[in-house]
Amino acid sequence: MKKTVQYIFIFISLNLHAQIERIDPPNWWVGMRTKQITLLVYGSAIQDLEPSINYSGVKILKTEKVESPNYLFVTIDIDSNTIPGDAKIEFKKNGKTKITKSFPLLNREKNSANRIGFSTKDAILLIVPDRFANGNPKNDNTPKSIEKANRNDESGRHGGDIQGIINHLDYIQSLGYTQIWNTPLVENNMPNYSYHGYAATDFYKIDERFGTNEEFKTLVSEAKKRNIGLIWDVVLNHCGSQYYFIKDVPTKDWMNFQDSKKRTNHIKSTLLDPYATIQDREEYTNGWFDGHMPDLNQKNPLVASYLTQNTIWWIEYANLSGFREDTFSYADKDFLSNWTKTIMDEYPNFNIVGEEMTNVTELSAYWQKDKINADGYRCFLPTLMDFSLTDNLIKSLSTNNDWESTWKEFYKGMGQDYHYANPNNLLIFPDNHDMDRFYTRIKNDFESWKLGMTLYTTMRGIPQLYYGTELLFTNEKAGNDGQRRADLFGGWEGDTKNAITEKGLDAKELEAQKYLSKLLNWRKTATVIHNGKFIHYAPEKNDVYVYFRYNENQKVMVILNKNKEKVLLDMKKYYKMIPETFTAKDIINDREITIQKTLEIAPRSALILDLNK
Amino acid sequence: MKKTVQYIFIFISLNLHAQIERIDPPNWWVGMRTKQITLLVYGSAIQDLEPSINYSGVKILKTEKVESPNYLFVTIDIDSNTIPGDAKIEFKKNGKTKITKSFPLLNREKNSANRIGFSTKDAILLIVPDRFANGNPKNDNTPKSIEKANRNDESGRHGGDIQGIINHLDYIQSLGYTQIWNTPLVENNMPNYSYHGYAATDFYKIDERFGTNEEFKTLVSEAKKRNIGLIWDVVLNHCGSQYYFIKDVPTKDWMNFQDSKKRTNHIKSTLLDPYATIQDREEYTNGWFDGHMPDLNQKNPLVASYLTQNTIWWIEYANLSGFREDTFSYADKDFLSNWTKTIMDEYPNFNIVGEEMTNVTELSAYWQKDKINADGYRCFLPTLMDFSLTDNLIKSLSTNNDWESTWKEFYKGMGQDYHYANPNNLLIFPDNHDMDRFYTRIKNDFESWKLGMTLYTTMRGIPQLYYGTELLFTNEKAGNDGQRRADLFGGWEGDTKNAITEKGLDAKELEAQKYLSKLLNWRKTATVIHNGKFIHYAPEKNDVYVYFRYNENQKVMVILNKNKEKVLLDMKKYYKMIPETFTAKDIINDREITIQKTLEIAPRSALILDLNK
Repeated sequence: MKKTVQYIFIFISLNLHAQIERIDPPNWWVGMRTKQITLLVYGSAIQDLEPSINYSGVKILKTEKVESPNYLFVTIDIDSNTIPGDAKIEFKKNGKTKITKSFPLLNREKNSANRIGFSTKDAILLIVPDRFANGNPKNDNTPKSIEKANRNDESGRHGGDIQGIINHLDYIQSLGYTQIWNTPLVENNMPNYSYHGYAATDFYKIDERFGTNEEFKTLVSEAKKRNIGLIWDVVLNHCGSQYYFIKDVPTKDWMNFQDSKKRTNHIKSTLLDPYATIQDREEYTNGWFDGHMPDLNQKNPLVASYLTQNTIWWIEYANLSGFREDTFSYADKDFLSNWTKTIMDEYPNFNIVGEEMTNVTELSAYWQKDKINADGYRCFLPTLMDFSLTDNLIKSLSTNNDWESTWKEFYKGMGQDYHYANPNNLLIFPDNHDMDRFYTRIKNDFESWKLGMTLYTTMRGIPQLYYGTELLFTNEKAGNDGQRRADLFGGWEGDTKNAITEKGLDAKELEAQKYLSKLLNWRKTATVIHNGKFIHYAPEKNDVYVYFRYNENQKVMVILNKNKEKVLLDMKKYYKMIPETFTAKDIINDREITIQKTLEIAPRSALILDLNK
Repeated sequence: MKKTVQYIFIFISLNLHAQIERIDPPNWWVGMRTKQITLLVYGSAIQDLEPSINYSGVKILKTEKVESPNYLFVTIDIDSNTIPGDAKIEFKKNGKTKITKSFPLLNREKNSANRIGFSTKDAILLIVPDRFANGNPKNDNTPKSIEKANRNDESGRHGGDIQGIINHLDYIQSLGYTQIWNTPLVENNMPNYSYHGYAATDFYKIDERFGTNEEFKTLVSEAKKRNIGLIWDVVLNHCGSQYYFIKDVPTKDWMNFQDSKKRTNHIKSTLLDPYATIQDREEYTNGWFDGHMPDLNQKNPLVASYLTQNTIWWIEYANLSGFREDTFSYADKDFLSNWTKTIMDEYPNFNIVGEEMTNVTELSAYWQKDKINADGYRCFLPTLMDFSLTDNLIKSLSTNNDWESTWKEFYKGMGQDYHYANPNNLLIFPDNHDMDRFYTRIKNDFESWKLGMTLYTTMRGIPQLYYGTELLFTNEKAGNDGQRRADLFGGWEGDTKNAITEKGLDAKELEAQKYLSKLLNWRKTATVIHNGKFIHYAPEKNDVYVYFRYNENQKVMVILNKNKEKVLLDMKKYYKMIPETFTAKDIINDREITIQKTLEIAPRSALILDLNK
């Protein structure tokens, strides 16, 4: 008897309190290839509501209940002839409408499907927004944000924001960048260590401390005026523990290791290892990054559709020119295949770069579109990050030559490119927010830095540089993320140094800024660097590394001399590429030079010879 | 007028002095698949002699003159029905027989074609004969040998010989070896640094300081009585500068870089590097090892047939059970493909292990039979040397575990086996004559040595150990070949220590001898180690590496604890391989043990649990 009363009470309460807190995605567009979408409807005790849409061209295909009473998954189809407008969703109970929700169907931007993604023609600037520039101190703390700003804490929020980036667009343009990749801007409303952005609490919302969704759109359009595109940092593998669907999980299998929260073993080799146990393989993919980053189970189709729709939503909403996908191989393999295919089918000229943090080339190459894998696996990821190139370069730059050239390791590393289906679609970078700063790794050696910058701006692939590289940023303590992500000079009022005004910059910093911006600005129109072939010569004892970028009409010769002595280069060696005597433009030193049989290369210096000018 | 006189004089002199110094090969066998062979006939001014053979079943197909007047290349066909005997070759001049040479056609040993090569069932002992044992001091110096013995010179001849090996066969057998690989025994009659055998001056003759061809046959038959096979060290890439056909070259293209003697760049990556220049690729393959080791041009069909026939000759002549081919990829790629195919077609159950000294797995895997290469290249080499396994093991054994297991690098390395068409056909070895001694590389740590030996005798592949490993041989100076190839204790009269009698051996050396021989002797009949599958568990923080060898009927669990503390292993983790409670034979400690749910592993120790006894 008592129990019956209780049930009745719950029943009434459900009806009284049924409220819809959110629908993800909050809108969609007409004319998408992805025209069937599954709406996640969230609200206390909404499970028994019956959704309906009365809008020409839109129909509900399926309504799914899950284990939690607070979710409904509504799959709708949007006919391609649908007229944009508000496809209101009515939620009924026993035939009576309880709640009505807007569901806007928008017009797509013109040519949205054909948008051109970042490519070899670009140079990408990587920014950690919290550490770049504080353009709007008013949003440093917001009422809803749990963690408050504290610039003295290297793991805390420093107040950098979207307005700060907008304020620096001219600076970024002048340096020669044509794309910006920000580490994630979505809400990370976590109790602490939330500035990095990889523990999302709302995939649909810009973190209030960075700004608003609208402000991000402004950034994109302001950047576009300067021919700069925006690359969005996508995290498919995990989110933050304060995400609403983590605190209140829809299903028992929403996360991997949902109860045990088992950590990943981080051993990538398990994916291809013929001897690995199934346990170890699953522990790699399904294990958590840490206890505050639940590992999402993309094998659950509701999780998969949520993630896929969210990423498409941002492309359409914010007019993006690319994705960088975090911790790529940690997500489910089949999902990754489907996700990359869906995105690239929707936007055939788009680009996605996956982070596979390994220097084992074949583990990275495994994921690239058109790669023929021994196990038959196919992914559709266009671009990968080339960690091995940087490791090899740093080995070469930071060792002394004795009996053989220190360039050998680098040369050998490049030789592994046969693993890649498309080695030109590789992101090349001296460092990023997860790595020790390049300048630190090469022992603060300015000449090596110049050699490195010359290489990154002339090598095959898509160069990505990290904010502060132009100012020789370092991190004294190896592995220290706070130092790796130090505040940009002048990003905060009262800073003693300023990247834009050059206030307080020393001679080396000024020279570095100038050196890099010269290379990047030259590279913008050096199309042979974008798409030319690459050929390189085995380094000899003289410790000079020589390569060419070339096509039918153009030719660039790059000479990197690591030798402490000047080197006299005999041009006979390169007879298949160049005549013994020729005239070229020396890009770095801005002059015409005529080479007659031999060329003297100054100690520890780089030369870019453009043979077409 | 003067010139004519001179010509006439030369002409007469040629006729008067025509002598045949040698015919290579000196004989052949009836019933070979390789029934067409090209005889290299060498002698001063023999070019105009006309060879003929009047022997049923044998015919001359072709007689070739080359640039040097001192050579004739005679290609003969030996019909499979030919009756063994002496197929004398008559060399005529103007129709008159000038010289008659024997060319014996022998009967093959029964089942010669089906001989079984070394395989995973075997354990191979590598010997440097000059440094192993001096069984016959009388041959230390011979009248013809240029370099004389000097045991005080670490780069000199020490006097070790074939008789010394014969004297040690019981010792070798007792240690548990079933194959012996000697570094080359063929004549190296060079002025100095000739003991290693890789600068041959006669591919058809045992060096007099090692013994005679007949003595080598005795070694083979004596070894066979003890179930030990002999592996021949083949060098196809180069020879010594004192070889008769180098001092008096047959053709302008007998060697690569015949005039410039250009050195190899040693950069293997050029072979697969999509960006390498043709020059660099050729410099790798065609360059010389050093000025005293001319690089043979196997693109010349006469060089190719000479080398191929010589290697077949030794199999038949000496009854070999395998080849080790030196500096594999330095020879011409197409020749290597043909040579391996010819040998394996002739002896389908034979084995050849190629030395591709690299820890880049895919560069090694490229050469293995049945490997599908991106460039379509096919080789027929059954076995490769697994340098990467040892590098990874030493990394694991010689580092201290901090936040993660030191076994991880090793585990990841094994995971690269998917590159190989047949990963069980890999030679695994702690070291060899070209490497620093294993015990040195693991910092003379006896417990690590035991872990290593346990691994090499239970891992997939074919174990090869180097003489002296059982006595913890070291080389104090890294890279010092003299120390790497130190004399075996007791191989010379008057030695203060003796491997066989145990005179002067310290407790550790005795323990090492016993430990290794127990493992090798157990391995002889542990068929699951020979052909069982392999599965391994990702190492965890406890720094224990666990793997299984198993087939339908047998199972061996190997536990390698690198931890300085004892470790309690929870058997639950291995539930797919073993029950929580089971009885097994502990091979190393020679006892039965019953495991109940957990197993305590002593600090820094190995366990082999055989579950079938």
